[in-house]
Amino acid sequence: MSVLITGSVALDSVKTPVEEHHDLLGGSASYASVAASFFVPVNMVGIVGTDFPKKYIELYRKHGINLDGLQVAEGQTFRWSGEYEWDLNQRRTLSVCLNVFETFLPRLPDAYKATPYVLLANISPQLQRHVLAQVAAPKFVVADTMDLWIETQRDALVELLRQVDCLVLNESEAREFTKQTNLIKAGRHILKQGPKFVIIKKGEHGCLLFANDMFFSAPAYPLEDIHDPTGAGDCFAGAFTGYLAGRDRIDHHSLRNAVIHGSVIASYCVEDFSLTRLQSLTQSEIKQRYDLFQSMSRFEME
Amino acid sequence: MSVLITGSVALDSVKTPVEEHHDLLGGSASYASVAASFFVPVNMVGIVGTDFPKKYIELYRKHGINLDGLQVAEGQTFRWSGEYEWDLNQRRTLSVCLNVFETFLPRLPDAYKATPYVLLANISPQLQRHVLAQVAAPKFVVADTMDLWIETQRDALVELLRQVDCLVLNESEAREFTKQTNLIKAGRHILKQGPKFVIIKKGEHGCLLFANDMFFSAPAYPLEDIHDPTGAGDCFAGAFTGYLAGRDRIDHHSLRNAVIHGSVIASYCVEDFSLTRLQSLTQSEIKQRYDLFQSMSRFEME
Repeated sequence: MSVLITGSVALDSVKTPVEEHHDLLGGSASYASVAASFFVPVNMVGIVGTDFPKKYIELYRKHGINLDGLQVAEGQTFRWSGEYEWDLNQRRTLSVCLNVFETFLPRLPDAYKATPYVLLANISPQLQRHVLAQVAAPKFVVADTMDLWIETQRDALVELLRQVDCLVLNESEAREFTKQTNLIKAGRHILKQGPKFVIIKKGEHGCLLFANDMFFSAPAYPLEDIHDPTGAGDCFAGAFTGYLAGRDRIDHHSLRNAVIHGSVIASYCVEDFSLTRLQSLTQSEIKQRYDLFQSMSRFEME
Repeated sequence: MSVLITGSVALDSVKTPVEEHHDLLGGSASYASVAASFFVPVNMVGIVGTDFPKKYIELYRKHGINLDGLQVAEGQTFRWSGEYEWDLNQRRTLSVCLNVFETFLPRLPDAYKATPYVLLANISPQLQRHVLAQVAAPKFVVADTMDLWIETQRDALVELLRQVDCLVLNESEAREFTKQTNLIKAGRHILKQGPKFVIIKKGEHGCLLFANDMFFSAPAYPLEDIHDPTGAGDCFAGAFTGYLAGRDRIDHHSLRNAVIHGSVIASYCVEDFSLTRLQSLTQSEIKQRYDLFQSMSRFEME
C-alpha cells in the first residue's frame, strides 16, 4: 500500500548551542515522507519555489518519493529559522517566511486520489482538510498538528478531528487543546472528539497511544547526544503511517509496532541535522533499534 | 528474606485543591514499610513521640511489621504539612516540626543486624549511613534521597553512594545532583559514583532503571484521578526492595519486576490519602495491575 503525505516543504536555518546550519532541507512533508519511505512508496503533496535546490529533489527521488504532487511555483521556498537552548526540548522560532506557501492550494494529481493511507503532516487544518477532501476513499487518515493551529484555527482543527482516524500531537499541545493537565484525561478527551486513536508524544519520555479499548505506553530511545531535534515529530508521524500502510492492517498489534517504528526513525533523525542521518539509514539499523526498544521495555512474570 | 527499613515516621497534614486532612500517618519509613510488607516481613527502624496514635501502631502490626526498632521518645512526633497545586506534581511544604526526630540516633535491635535486604528510605544521608553501619553483612542496599540532602548534605550523600547497591531518586533530583539536563546522562553519571543500579522516577512518565549492562524503561500506570501523591516515591522504594527480598535474586529479570511492583504499589497509594488505599489492597489487585502494566507496554514483531 502507498501513503499520501502533505505538509510543508521548507529551507531551514537551525541553531543549537554548539552548531548552526543554513538552507537545510526541512518542512513536515520532507521529514514525514523520507521517514515513511522506509516502509512504503510515498505520494508527496507540497509546494516549493523556483529556488528549491535540485539536490533536495534528488534526495526525495533517492527515497522513491513520487513528486507529481509537488508544485513548483514562481518565487521563494518557505523558509523557517529556529534556535534551541541547551535543553533541546525548548525551541524558539526566529523567523518564518511563508513565500510560495502563502498561496498554496494543494491539487492532487489524479493518480494520487486513490491512495489508501493518508498523512496530513503539520500544516494548517484548513489545508489538511482541503487535501483530504480530494482523496476518494481513504482507508486510514492520520493528522499531525501544532500549537499555532490550536491557538489560531481551533474550529478548523475540531472539524478535522471528525474526519481523521488518528491524531498525533505533543504533550504541551494536548494539554493546551484540552485544558487538561493530566495527559490521560487529555488523550481520552480528544478520543471523544472524533479520532479512533490519539498519540501524545512526550519527547524524552516516549509516547502514549490511546484508543477506546486500548492504551499503550512506549518508551523513548535513551539518547545521550541529540544534535538537532527538528523534524523528530514529523518523522514519527511519517514512519508511523508508513509502517501501518506497509502492514495494511489496523489492529492493536500493528498500531503498537507502528508507534515503535515511528519512535525508531525519530530517534535516528535527531542524531544529525536535517535529514542527514536518514540518508544513510539502513533496514538493519531500523531492526537493530527496534530490538533495543523491545529489550528495554520488556518484563515478564517469573 | 526480610527487609530492614529506616526513614521518617510522621504525622502529616496534607492539602490538595479539593481536600484537606490532618494527623495522617506519614513519613518515608511508614510508606515504605507498609509497601514492602506485601512481599516480605519488615524490620522497621524509626522514632515517634509519646503522642503517636495507637491506631497507627495497630496499622503497622496489621501489616506484620516488626516494631522492635521503633523508638518511642518523650515529646512530639515529627510533623510535616504540605500543599499541592492543581497540577499535583507540584508540592509546597508549609511546615516541618522535627520534634523527637531532631535527636534521633537509630539503634538497631540485635535481631535486626543480620537483615539481608536494607532500604534506607528518605532521611538524611548521615542517618542512613549510621543505620547501615550497624547491619552486619547486607546483601543488597537501596537508598532513597531528596533535593534537601542534595543541597545541604552533598558530601555525605556522595559518601553514601559508595556504600549502596541502588540509588532511587526523582527526575529533578537526578538533574540537580548531576547538573545534567539529559536524564540518560544523569543516570549513567550516578552509576559511576558507586551504585550498581540507579532508578530515576519520573512521576506520570514512569521510571528508568540503569545498570552498566542494562537499561529498563517502565511506564506509569495511567491514573486519571490522583487524590494525594504523598508517599508515592516511598511506596515505590519499599515495594521495589520488598519484591527483591521476596525473590532473593538480584538479576535483571527480578530488578525489572521489582520496578514494576514498585510502580504498582505507588499507583495504588496515590488513589487515597496517607496509607488508606494500601489498607485494603489485596494480592489479587496487585497481580491485576501488574498484568495491566504488562499489557500496556508490550509489543512484538509480527
